[in-house]
This record gives sequence, C-alpha cells and structure tokens, in this order.
Amino acid sequence: MSVRVGIIGVGIMGADHARTLATQVPGATLQAIFDADAARAKAVAAETGAVSLAKGPVALINDPAIDAVILASPDSTHAPLTLAAIAAGKPVLCEKPLAPTAREALEIVAAEALRGKRLVQVGYMRRFDPAYVELKARLGSGALGPALMFHCFHRNVAAPDWFDAKMAIGNSAVHEFDIARWLLDTELATVQGFKPRGAGTNAAAAPVFLVFETVAGPLVNVEVFNNAAYGYDVRGELVCEKGTLALRAPTRTEIRAAFAHSTAYPADWRPWFADAYRLQLQAWIRAIESGDSVGASAWDGYAAAAVAEAGWESLVSGTRAKVELATRPALYG
Amino acid sequence: MSVRVGIIGVGIMGADHARTLATQVPGATLQAIFDADAARAKAVAAETGAVSLAKGPVALINDPAIDAVILASPDSTHAPLTLAAIAAGKPVLCEKPLAPTAREALEIVAAEALRGKRLVQVGYMRRFDPAYVELKARLGSGALGPALMFHCFHRNVAAPDWFDAKMAIGNSAVHEFDIARWLLDTELATVQGFKPRGAGTNAAAAPVFLVFETVAGPLVNVEVFNNAAYGYDVRGELVCEKGTLALRAPTRTEIRAAFAHSTAYPADWRPWFADAYRLQLQAWIRAIESGDSVGASAWDGYAAAAVAEAGWESLVSGTRAKVELATRPALYG
Amino acid sequence: MSVRVGIIGVGIMGADHARTLATQVPGATLQAIFDADAARAKAVAAETGAVSLAKGPVALINDPAIDAVILASPDSTHAPLTLAAIAAGKPVLCEKPLAPTAREALEIVAAEALRGKRLVQVGYMRRFDPAYVELKARLGSGALGPALMFHCFHRNVAAPDWFDAKMAIGNSAVHEFDIARWLLDTELATVQGFKPRGAGTNAAAAPVFLVFETVAGPLVNVEVFNNAAYGYDVRGELVCEKGTLALRAPTRTEIRAAFAHSTAYPADWRPWFADAYRLQLQAWIRAIESGDSVGASAWDGYAAAAVAEAGWESLVSGTRAKVELATRPALYG
Amino acid sequence: MSVRVGIIGVGIMGADHARTLATQVPGATLQAIFDADAARAKAVAAETGAVSLAKGPVALINDPAIDAVILASPDSTHAPLTLAAIAAGKPVLCEKPLAPTAREALEIVAAEALRGKRLVQVGYMRRFDPAYVELKARLGSGALGPALMFHCFHRNVAAPDWFDAKMAIGNSAVHEFDIARWLLDTELATVQGFKPRGAGTNAAAAPVFLVFETVAGPLVNVEVFNNAAYGYDVRGELVCEKGTLALRAPTRTEIRAAFAHSTAYPADWRPWFADAYRLQLQAWIRAIESGDSVGASAWDGYAAAAVAEAGWESLVSGTRAKVELATRPALYG
Repeated sequence: MSVRVGIIGVGIMGADHARTLATQVPGATLQAIFDADAARAKAVAAETGAVSLAKGPVALINDPAIDAVILASPDSTHAPLTLAAIAAGKPVLCEKPLAPTAREALEIVAAEALRGKRLVQVGYMRRFDPAYVELKARLGSGALGPALMFHCFHRNVAAPDWFDAKMAIGNSAVHEFDIARWLLDTELATVQGFKPRGAGTNAAAAPVFLVFETVAGPLVNVEVFNNAAYGYDVRGELVCEKGTLALRAPTRTEIRAAFAHSTAYPADWRPWFADAYRLQLQAWIRAIESGDSVGASAWDGYAAAAVAEAGWESLVSGTRAKVELATRPALYG
Repeated sequence: MSVRVGIIGVGIMGADHARTLATQVPGATLQAIFDADAARAKAVAAETGAVSLAKGPVALINDPAIDAVILASPDSTHAPLTLAAIAAGKPVLCEKPLAPTAREALEIVAAEALRGKRLVQVGYMRRFDPAYVELKARLGSGALGPALMFHCFHRNVAAPDWFDAKMAIGNSAVHEFDIARWLLDTELATVQGFKPRGAGTNAAAAPVFLVFETVAGPLVNVEVFNNAAYGYDVRGELVCEKGTLALRAPTRTEIRAAFAHSTAYPADWRPWFADAYRLQLQAWIRAIESGDSVGASAWDGYAAAAVAEAGWESLVSGTRAKVELATRPALYG
Repeated sequence: MSVRVGIIGVGIMGADHARTLATQVPGATLQAIFDADAARAKAVAAETGAVSLAKGPVALINDPAIDAVILASPDSTHAPLTLAAIAAGKPVLCEKPLAPTAREALEIVAAEALRGKRLVQVGYMRRFDPAYVELKARLGSGALGPALMFHCFHRNVAAPDWFDAKMAIGNSAVHEFDIARWLLDTELATVQGFKPRGAGTNAAAAPVFLVFETVAGPLVNVEVFNNAAYGYDVRGELVCEKGTLALRAPTRTEIRAAFAHSTAYPADWRPWFADAYRLQLQAWIRAIESGDSVGASAWDGYAAAAVAEAGWESLVSGTRAKVELATRPALYG
Repeated sequence: MSVRVGIIGVGIMGADHARTLATQVPGATLQAIFDADAARAKAVAAETGAVSLAKGPVALINDPAIDAVILASPDSTHAPLTLAAIAAGKPVLCEKPLAPTAREALEIVAAEALRGKRLVQVGYMRRFDPAYVELKARLGSGALGPALMFHCFHRNVAAPDWFDAKMAIGNSAVHEFDIARWLLDTELATVQGFKPRGAGTNAAAAPVFLVFETVAGPLVNVEVFNNAAYGYDVRGELVCEKGTLALRAPTRTEIRAAFAHSTAYPADWRPWFADAYRLQLQAWIRAIESGDSVGASAWDGYAAAAVAEAGWESLVSGTRAKVELATRPALYG
C-alpha cells in the first residue's frame, strides 16, 4: 500500500522533493503536483512521473486520492494550506517557515492540538542529517559530559539585496534555532543580537551574530552570514565538559593544485544536505505508514518563529530580548 | 511496473542488499529469498518484507515471478549460478569475485558474449561511490592533466588466520584493481609483488604491496593490509601532471577529547560504502527498467581475476608477472 | 657587543625564557638571574650558564652590568619593577599582565611617556607567532576584503579552583584581547559577557563568552575555557567579506590507531607557542641593538587590562559595558 | 668560547646557512665566507656580519682562525673539500650529496675512519625536523608495534630539463633514503624502480617510483616527483602493526575563499624545513662544543649514495637491484 503524496509548489525546493520521492523513497507514489506556474508543474510531473496535475492547492489537499501533502509553495501560503491539511486530517510536510509570524504559527499549533493528532511536520531537515544525528548520539552517550556551549556558523554565498538581516534571522538562522533546540533538548530563553559596523562594511550584506541563553543552561551562539562569498558552509561545535564535538563537511575528495591543498565548497545547500532531505522524506513516509510522527513538529515551527522574532527585536533595540513562548500543549510532549 | 528481485544468499552482504532494496530503491520488489540456512532466509524475509522463500537457488533463478537476481551466496557458487542466470536470460548482480579463477570467469564472459546481451553486473560497488565518481569526474575534466600514478591503500581491521596473502589479493585487492582500471580506463599490464619480512613481523598477517604498469602508461600501486588494526580505511591518490586528487573519508563529525583531535574509523566497510551500495542497487534497477547495463561487467570481473592471479604469481616468484588477458569480445566495447 | 640580560623570576615562564635566551638568541648574554627562591635561581643559572645571581630585583635592574631586563616574577611585582626599569632607562620585557589594574598600568604608560622613549615590551608573544603573523599578512594583503568578525577560542586543560571567571578574563583572555586589537588595528569599544548556567554545570569551571564591538567596526567574540579538559587549544577565525582566515594548530604528525585518525593536543601552551617565545626574544634583542621597539607596548598592556575590567563588569552586571580608555600619549603612535 | 665557522659557497643554501648561523645560533661566530663569486661572498658577508672573506676554500679550511666548516659549494667540490677538512682535523657540515659517487663517498669514510674521529656531518637536515623526530619517537615508544612499511612522497614544483630521473634519485630522493634508514634503523637491501610511461606523458618530467626491501624487514617505497607543479610537498606514512604514523605539513593557517577550504603549499623546501635547518645548525655547534657528533655521518652519506646508484641501475635495467655496501667501519657503531 503506497502512500499517495501530493506536492504543492515545485520551484527549486519542491522539484527536489519530487525527484527524491520518485527515485529514493519506496512506499510512496507521487500522485499529484500543483504549481501556480502550470508549465513548471507539467515539466516536473513529466520528469518525475507524477500521476496527475491538481487544479489548485486546496483541491489537491482535499482530493481523496491524496494521502499526504508536501508544501513547498511560497512562504505566505504555508499557514493557510497547513491549516487546510489539518482540517482534512492529512499529514503535511511543510517547508520552513511554518508561518510568517509566531502568532500565525501558534494558530496552527492550536488547530492541531484541538484535532489531537500530530499531522504537521516542518521541513527542518537537519534533524535527519547524518552529521547532526551523530552529534546528538555522541552527546547523548554522555562520554563527554553535559553540553556547555554550542557554536553555530551558517554561511551562504550571496543573497539578493532585499534579503536583509530580518530575513537572515527568519529564513536562514531558523535552521540553527531548531537544531540547537533539538540537540540540547531545551528552549532558547534570551537573545542578544550583534552586527559588525564600520566604514568598510556593507551593512545590508554583513553577518548577524546572536547569542542565546537557554532554559537548560548551555549558551548558543549563531553567526548567520548570507554573503560569505566563499561557498555554502555550515559548521557547529558543541562544547562539553570533557571535550567537544563538531560537524565535518560532507566532502569526499581533496585537491592539490596551484599551491593549495583544498576541498571544495558547494554553491548552495542542496549537495550539502541531500542526504538529510532523502532521509527526511523516507522517515516521513514510514511514519505515515505506521501512524507515528517524526521530525520537527508544529510546536517546533512555532518556537523557531518566536526565537527569530526575539532575535530581530534584540538586533533593532540593541538590548537583550526574552523569547516569549505560549504554553506548550500536551500533544507535543 | 516493479522489477521483481530474488536474492540468493542472505549472509551479511545479502541481508544488507535485501534491506537496501526494501528501504532505498523505488521500482523494485523483493520477491524471493533463498539461503542454504532456512532460518536465516526466513528471518531476513520477515525483516524486509520479502514476498516469498525460494526452494533453491536454481529454482529461484528460473521462477517466472523473478525478473532479476542478486547473488550473494558463497564465492564457489557465483560462477554456476551466474551461468544459470545467463541461461535464463535474467539480469544478475553477482557479488565479487565473479568466479574463483580467471579461467572460469572467462567462461561466463564467453557465455554472455554468445547470448549477445549484457546480463551480468559484478558488485564492484565502488564505481558508484560518490568519492570515486567525483575523482573520475575531476580527472575527466582535464584540469589537472593526464594521470601519472595512482596510489591505493586498502586496510581492514583484522582477518582470520586462513585469510592469507592470496586471499588478500583475490578478495580484497580486487576492489582496487577494478577501480584503477575504471578510473584510468586502461588494463593493468604487469605486476610486481612485495611483502615486508623480518623478525618482528607476522608474515601471514602482513600487508601486501603491488606495483602495476598499465597499458596506457600510468603506474598503479596497491597496499592491501587486512590486519591494519586501527580501523577500516580506504585511501587513494591520483597523481596528475598539474596536481593530485585524493579520496576523503566519509566522516561527518570531529571529536576533541583526551588530548586528541580525531575522526572515527568504522570497524568494517559497510558504513564507509553504504552510499555506494544504495546507488549501485538503484542504478541496477533503473538499468533493468531501461534495458541498459551499468557498472562492472563480466569482462571487468574476469580482468580483476586475471590481475589477481598475476599478482599472486609475482608475490610467489619474486619477479614481475604479466597480466595475460584473452581477446575482449565486442559486447564489452 | 652582546646585550646583557637579567631575568627576574625563574618559575616556569622565567626559566623557559632563560633557556630560550641561552640556546636560541645570538647577541644576548644571560648576565644575571634573581628569584625569591634562591635554590631555584641557582639551579636555573647552572642549567643555562647565567653569569651571576643577583641580590634582589631592584639591584639587578640597577646593576650597570645589566643592559635589559626580563620580568617573569609574580604578577603583583610587575608594575613596580617595570617602573624601576623605566627609571633606570633600561628596556624591560614584562610578562603579562603589565599591572593588576588598568589604573596601575596607566601609571606605567604615563611614566614611560614622560621619559619619552619606549622601554617597555609586554610579553604578548602571540604577536610573534607565525600563525598570527601569517593571518595578519593575509588580512593586510586585502585579497579577502575587510574583516567583519573575529571568532576566538582559548582553551586550557584545567585550572585550579581559585582560578575563577575574573582570572579567566584577566589572565587568559587578555591574550585574545591583545591579538584582536593587533590584528584588526583597532580598540575594543564595548563588551557583553555571557556564561553557561544550569543544573549540570560547574559554574566556577565553566567557560566565559565575551562579545565585543570595536571602534573600527568588526565584531570580536572570545570563548575562554580554562577547564576544557581535552587539551591546550587556541583557535581563531577572521571572517572577511570575501572569505575567512583561520589558525591551524602547530601539529606535525597524525596518528591512525584505535579506530581514530587523530592529532595530539599538548597539555599546556609551551609547545604550542615555543616559536612565538623564541621569535619574541630574538626580536626584543634585535630591537635593543638597533634602538627600536617592537611588540606590545605599555599602552597595549594598559588597553588589555582596561578591556578585561570591562569584560568582568559586564559579566557581573549582565549588561553591555563600555571599554573606557584614557587619551593615548603621542609616544604610542 | 664561540665556535668560529667558515662557510664555503653562499648560493641559496649557503647564504641560508649564513643567515641562520648569524640570527639563530648562539655560541657560533660567522668567521669567514668563501664563494667563487666574490661579489656574492661580499654581499652575504655584509648581510650576515661575517668577520672576513677567505681567499679560497682550502685556505679557509686551513685558517687557524676557523674551528669548523660548512660546505655548500657545488656538488663536485664536496668530496675533495671534505677530505681537506678531515686532513685539517676540523668538523665539517657538508651539504648532500657527500660525493658524486658511492666510491668517492667511501674514500671519505675510509679517511675519517683512519683518523678515528667523526668530523663529517652530512646535511640531511630532516633528522632534525620536528615532524620526523616526533615520528621516530612515536615509533620508538612501541605503542603501535613494529614498522611494516614506510610510504614516502617527495614532490617539487618544477625541475629544469637537465634534472633527469638520475638526478631525481641522486639529489632529491636521497633525502628519503637517509630518513628511511634513520627512522627504521636499518639498511636498504634491494630496490626496484618504476616510471609511468605512455602517450600523454613527458618522460623526462615524470615521477620515479622506487620500492625497497630492507635488511630488517619493512618495505619502503618512494615517489619522487620533481615536476609536481602544485607545490613543494613531502609526505610520509609509517605503517605499523597496530596503526600508522604520518607527517603533517608545517602549515599554520587555513583559507576559505573561492569555493575552497585550503592550506597553502610553499614554492620550495625552505619554509617547509626552516626549523630543521635551524635545529641542525644548533645541534652541530653544540656537538662541536662538547666533542660529540650528531646527525648523518659520512657512512650515512655513503649509504645514501650507494642506494641511489642501485635505484638508478634498477630503473635502467627494469629488474631488481641489490644495494651493495662495503663493511661498516667500527667508527660508525
């Protein structure tokens, strides 16, 4: 019994999901595709062997031939379509962010809690990345003692002009917020934002640096730099009482040429996290088959959004901001 | 239309193939399993959801409900069962070695050539490993000029007493022979074998060192050390006119503890080459669907066996040995 | 004409200076040693071939047979003895910290400025470390554009109980403050201190995390962790507009053993910075010969002390602190 | 009492020795310089503060104001001048090779043995390199068991046309022969030479690959590639029964730029082995002071020459060659 999946939005991210589903995930059928750009929908369907094209996003969600939904449409549509999936009682894998504001994300949490069953998974795929999974396992083994600090670095090659510090926090750094919460198993409590300044510095393009205190105690700091120029790079080091654990890039070859010994950086996140996306989709389908839930929940999506808002508030005010979270419904453990 | 696969032999290797097929390869059905140990066959079938248990290996091959066969049974059965699959006109993925001797491997080549269609793929999975694939692509780009040397290191943790130098060459180093032939696109022409000696050395457990001249010109040298103790490790460096290309271990975390900065080695080849096995199976199924062939052919299996025999001959005689190959049938390009 | 050097204090640091002077620095004579522990003074003199033992620190400074003084006595003696050297008109290399408080360091600045000649060098030896020197040269080349952030990590194996967060800032992190000022050629302007908390955390032993804004613009952050357990480790990454520059440990061998590929960490700073100490002493002697001055000045010693005080103030108050500096005398450029 | 040193030949190598002696070696005086190019001698003397210029090499050696001699003149002069130094009873540090042929090197051995005192040190400076010294110490600790293989890689950026395979063996690879003999504490017994061939290969510029059996048992293999293009690079891995030990480049910074994470290679050997040259000179002077001898002896220089001759013979003949050594005089232990 194959899980029949419909994908809403087949831009870069959605088309990648479609390909991964078609080539890497047994037990799933790519049943329908919808995209506001009909030609793109058609092209991706042809490439991936999707069974049908849907008339609209809500029609896709409510189609009885669809068992589960992947949301990779524009950010502004995430919240209403996730709510529609909850209303239809169908599992939905929603790309981050879950909603444009923490308040709207909380409405999704409330709707899902009311329904009493976890249907929403937010696409924080790093939770399935072998490097982070190994980090968590090694931390959990206790061999290095409790965590004290988590240093995070998130660098992209270049961002368009309109991708400002607020977006760097709300669209890039949220991956760090989620993975820190997951790794350390705690909520982020306060945040202090910093930004380099000065004559030679392009303020819009400059990195953002955030330092968090957590409820459990460890500090977390995040550098998010969307114009790092040199390559896509994600690093993390977990400092524990008896040692540290760090991520290592997924690079498989080394080059010696032109007076340098080097490894290559990719231009974007896709090769870096290809395994994570594959494993996330496989885990999502298996969870649907077994009636379980895995990965980042609606609550996690809400918490990341609330952290982002506090981070932006601190950066603007120059003072420490508190991360204010609603009461966590019992559904989320 | 799913490809219905039967697996003969579900020891460590065959059971891994069964799991990979069940969880990572869309378009395939695990239709039947056979193992001389019926309990093992049953257990693996239960774990992987195999449709049925076969009565015997030949029965499995000839079962009309089977479209393609994976051979992971004891080495001595590879040749007769591969011939049976050719006779049945069914694609077969045969674990290495293809046959115990080059002569017997050549019989398979002849049988397949007579049939006029490539049905046999030998499980030299490294050809699908992302690190080797990247090495070949970078070499092929021409940026570093032609290859001059290829240094190969193949280390296992420990081998049983009966795993002597002959087996080290015929069962471990064959992976290096195949990948060198594939990367450099040439046949190995001569070989000179060496072995450390001396008072402190356990001769049976010692590494073997082989140096090859190739038809195209580059030198290849292989250290195969099955009692390297420290971990499973495969390295390779391709020396070109303008630089070198090297493999990098598939390690994803770094540890700082106990006065060391370290990365971990696995105990065996499975985590190291998990991607290669997955991609090999996916490529095999896709090739069956499209009527193509991919990966190492029967000819490649034969050539690796012939190289191994020359390597052993040189190690025994202490003089350089020639790799004698039959004429390559047109089927193999 | 050899520079006749007297060393005051031959504990770990002073004895190392004596050995380095005796074996690595042409143009210098180890003329006299003084230590409050006479036996220790005698032993080090015997080992290093020092010409004589001094009766007291001030006697040594004022001895006409002494051309220049190295101060490696207890921290509390640094300020008065440095003032004595200035009064005697003799070059002095004073181990950090220059003085216990910024106020006292400023008195030294004033005394030296009054004299109108740079005599004081503070032993911030990292300015001579090949790794930092290369970092500064690469930054200065402009190839990577201006600096935006500097991430610093300073870890020791273990500190005694009385070595609290205040000392971590004033005695360990000062190295980072000095090197950041030197690398970025700017003063540190504000600081915000953080500390991990929580049930599992030994507060006294926990790391301190400091984030600085600088006058020129780049951010600087410093983790100082004196109980890092795993080894002595100093790291730094300079994030520039077009790429980053990082320190690499001075490790010369790699070990593959026990399922790990590793490099070793030393137990303390001495092997890590042995080159820096040697080059610092050589440069100091050459500067004395030529009448120049090199390395960290009294002003630099004062500035580091002022930064440390602001860091501690911020850690205690939980709010951002300003680094208040006096007016820089013309002597310091 | 300073050791008064005379340097014969101040080309690249000799001028470096002069600078190192003047700036890094207490206890030595640069007493005299001779170079066939009088202007060059004068310039280097001015730069390094040499006391005088000598009229000729033999005059320098026999000058009573000279205690010890460094020979960095053209290779062809090494043997006669070393013999002159022995005749004068003066310690001599002779750049490699000790003599153009093993036969002539053996004459030096005989002359020194007759005199009954070690006066000759051959400039195989790697014996003082911290990386090799650490390798030997770790091997000697026994923690990894006995050595089985030693893999050596020696790469230069580019060699002139006249620097053929014979010179690659006799002038570059000799460093590897010496260090292997020293590390493994054994003589090299047989050698088999190899060279890549083929259409795309510049035969003159191609690497040479040599495989050695040793008297003690471990295998040694050496790749020497003088046109490696990408940078100056020396690597070595010692394979022991329980693990391996490898050299690590003396690189102190890492760069992330232009889609690569890289470390830089130098253009030649000087920065790589600067520490080794400094430590070699210091040890040589200390040994002269104490009447001891350190480093590579005349016997070692002879043995390296004999190995080079056998290596070339094997490369020409295509068959294994035996390294034939004379009887080792008692003077060499």
